[in-house]
Amino acid sequence: MQRKSFGNMECPIARSLERVGEWWSILVLRDAIYGLTRFDQFQKNLNIAPNILTRRLAALVEAGLLERRLYCEKPPRYEYILTPRGRDFRPILFSLQAWGNRYFAPEGASVVLIDKSTGKAADPILVDRLTGKPITDATHANAAGPAAGPRVQKRLAKSGKIATPSQDAP
Amino acid sequence: MQRKSFGNMECPIARSLERVGEWWSILVLRDAIYGLTRFDQFQKNLNIAPNILTRRLAALVEAGLLERRLYCEKPPRYEYILTPRGRDFRPILFSLQAWGNRYFAPEGASVVLIDKSTGKAADPILVDRLTGKPITDATHANAAGPAAGPRVQKRLAKSGKIATPSQDAP
Repeated sequence: MQRKSFGNMECPIARSLERVGEWWSILVLRDAIYGLTRFDQFQKNLNIAPNILTRRLAALVEAGLLERRLYCEKPPRYEYILTPRGRDFRPILFSLQAWGNRYFAPEGASVVLIDKSTGKAADPILVDRLTGKPITDATHANAAGPAAGPRVQKRLAKSGKIATPSQDAP
Repeated sequence: MQRKSFGNMECPIARSLERVGEWWSILVLRDAIYGLTRFDQFQKNLNIAPNILTRRLAALVEAGLLERRLYCEKPPRYEYILTPRGRDFRPILFSLQAWGNRYFAPEGASVVLIDKSTGKAADPILVDRLTGKPITDATHANAAGPAAGPRVQKRLAKSGKIATPSQDAP
């Protein structure tokens, strides 16, 4: 299936999707975050065709989310280790997990994030690290950043969001 | 392109991806969260083929993320309004946006989340709403939930995560 490339769009969401916007890639990342590193582990856990897994792992390595490392010389065997960039994908996975548990688990949750010190289920929410304030429509909005082109500036202005102080520059 | 359905997997991430795990769906949701509601608005902003947009909107309506509403009777015209479930996708989008800005915007950010009261860029992180503690590998882990089947229980045990108190039940 041919698809448009999102990598050149200005939107940071579109650019992120370019790297991981494919079901299998996200599930491979999920398993890597769970601690899996080897081809046969991913293959078994995901029940994925080997040729698809090979392509997904190569794409994640190319995007800098996994690093391929030789762990056995004879025969040559590789493992796939999360990079810091790949590890930083965790908040997205935990948010997806919480959303899935809330809306798509009518029989109850199969997997829950817990606080290790108490064993209680956690309720992950986004806050601003700088102020501790929860991110809500009332308190936060998107604005044009320093690298915004005219199209993004126009879109953000149109959608009624407030602008950064620099947005009135030509 | 045929693909496997993830909707029957136990994993809440896989189930969420079943609903939105397609580039266009996520970008349509992004635009809906920006305030767009009408077919021609989405079409223009995304530069997407009308038949693809029609399919994506129908899938998002079916998954309960958008609601289709008649806003003009003659001729009949519909708009697409976010449901609470669709609105709750925001933390995932903001996390994707922050991740994209961090790693895939070498020229600087085009779109930044700001605190409306100060105009300063926010740095969204996940915390546990119940305790305020940031979600980290050191403090939080996934555990089998009440609806976990044997496969999920085994996987979580294997990956070295701690179990919920109820996991030793048969």
